[in-house]
Amino acid sequence: MATNIADYIEMNRTYLNEAMVRAIERTSIPSKLKSSMLYSIKAGGKRIRPILMFASAEAFGGNKEDVLPAAIALEMIHTYSLIHDDLPAMDDDDLRRGNPTNHIQFDEATAILAGDGLLTMAFQVIAEATSLSPERKVMLSNRLSHASGPSGMIAGQILDLEAEEKQVNLSELEQIHRLKTGELLIFAVEMGAYLAGASKTTLKLIKEFGHQIGLIFQIQDDILDIEGDQNLIGKQVGSDQANDKSTYPKLLGLEGAIKAKKQHIEIAQNTLKEAGIFESTLADLVTYISSRDQ
Amino acid sequence: MATNIADYIEMNRTYLNEAMVRAIERTSIPSKLKSSMLYSIKAGGKRIRPILMFASAEAFGGNKEDVLPAAIALEMIHTYSLIHDDLPAMDDDDLRRGNPTNHIQFDEATAILAGDGLLTMAFQVIAEATSLSPERKVMLSNRLSHASGPSGMIAGQILDLEAEEKQVNLSELEQIHRLKTGELLIFAVEMGAYLAGASKTTLKLIKEFGHQIGLIFQIQDDILDIEGDQNLIGKQVGSDQANDKSTYPKLLGLEGAIKAKKQHIEIAQNTLKEAGIFESTLADLVTYISSRDQ
Repeated sequence: MATNIADYIEMNRTYLNEAMVRAIERTSIPSKLKSSMLYSIKAGGKRIRPILMFASAEAFGGNKEDVLPAAIALEMIHTYSLIHDDLPAMDDDDLRRGNPTNHIQFDEATAILAGDGLLTMAFQVIAEATSLSPERKVMLSNRLSHASGPSGMIAGQILDLEAEEKQVNLSELEQIHRLKTGELLIFAVEMGAYLAGASKTTLKLIKEFGHQIGLIFQIQDDILDIEGDQNLIGKQVGSDQANDKSTYPKLLGLEGAIKAKKQHIEIAQNTLKEAGIFESTLADLVTYISSRDQ
Repeated sequence: MATNIADYIEMNRTYLNEAMVRAIERTSIPSKLKSSMLYSIKAGGKRIRPILMFASAEAFGGNKEDVLPAAIALEMIHTYSLIHDDLPAMDDDDLRRGNPTNHIQFDEATAILAGDGLLTMAFQVIAEATSLSPERKVMLSNRLSHASGPSGMIAGQILDLEAEEKQVNLSELEQIHRLKTGELLIFAVEMGAYLAGASKTTLKLIKEFGHQIGLIFQIQDDILDIEGDQNLIGKQVGSDQANDKSTYPKLLGLEGAIKAKKQHIEIAQNTLKEAGIFESTLADLVTYISSRDQ
């Protein structure tokens, strides 16, 4: 277990960021397109998905070097989804983490292409990885396309857009989050464990752990929109309520949302115990994600 | 050699169309997103890329069943690129082949997501193909991401957008077309031959053949914009000139463009002879592509 989770996160974030920038820098890409891709890659972010993947691999005796291509691909997919989600036709956001969004910094056409470029490059990074067997590349490519494709993350995004125009119930809300956020978090921990050689039975437990992490992540997001510090979260506190958005606190009350989060933390911890890796950094990450202030 | 190239094209087009629709229909996708993806997939088109792939596999003793997943993936990539190219921020086209473009029929957000969905699904189709070894899947995924990614088709699209604001010379024009159109045509014939077991030396010849096909295809496109029947080509004749677009006839004159096309046809035919497959449907497809009226 990492003695200091903040140090662990910082160290791995830097490791990933440098590798992502290198992967794009060394590829021959027209300069405007490359700048636009690098702009969003360098815009930072929590890197929670690749860090979960590193921690999951390490929990099963793997190391982060072996999962690096998968972690890069995963974060490229996440980054492309943010660029496209911010577009005027989608969420129409001008700022992300206090900086101009990609289409504001460049233009809409470039932002669409930068997103397409990162999406496509994710599969290139997996296909080109020298450290992975063909079988493992196919597994990663298969799972990543499912998790991020029209049955996964993209499905979640269109259902989320549709939900803006109506009230959804708790099970519909969980379905949207499972697709939009959960699938990639599950991919992170499941593929980290897979690449470290975890057994099929263990992988099932890890998938369930990923699912719980997704719920905890989302509930905390909703809670931060009520109780958070807007300088830290980078957006107006109370924006969900102002936009009449369906959230856990709206459906369960703030107390109910906090209680639900506690229950999911317990299930997540029990899953780690059952998988025999409660003494791993993954347990610290549950605490980090559930109590994060940004 | 097919006795009738029109029949060959029609038969293979139907075969591919049915397989593509099936692949999407059987996937669990939210209904609006699925409709939007199917709308553009069903919008037709020449299907010249997958047909080249089928013909290339057959020229080397392969069959179209074995290359079907690669052909579907290829056409999904081509289709997504049309959806995104038509967006208001890009070429801003309301009509394609006489029908409303995806974002007109649905809305911009849905069109962006349908494009993202088809792009992602292309890699899923390859990863899931039951008839291909892991090594072949990795090769296909690697080549497809290169041909269509930020060093390939997407690079061509951004250079094309940039070229609208300036005059380009012949070598710049060829570079744009090689990236925007040529790379996927090369992928089509090279991977068809690869999956049929062609040797490395032969694959080099086939790549060159694909490159020539790309040039012929583009020159013919430019010629049709001058001499074509607008009912057949589905857009206003003379639109390139009206938009002051860099084209082969503009740079070489109409006679010069026709002469250049003839030269590329000769090189393409010689390449087929050298590869020992001049008596294949690929030779008929050269004639078809160079004399097509739509």
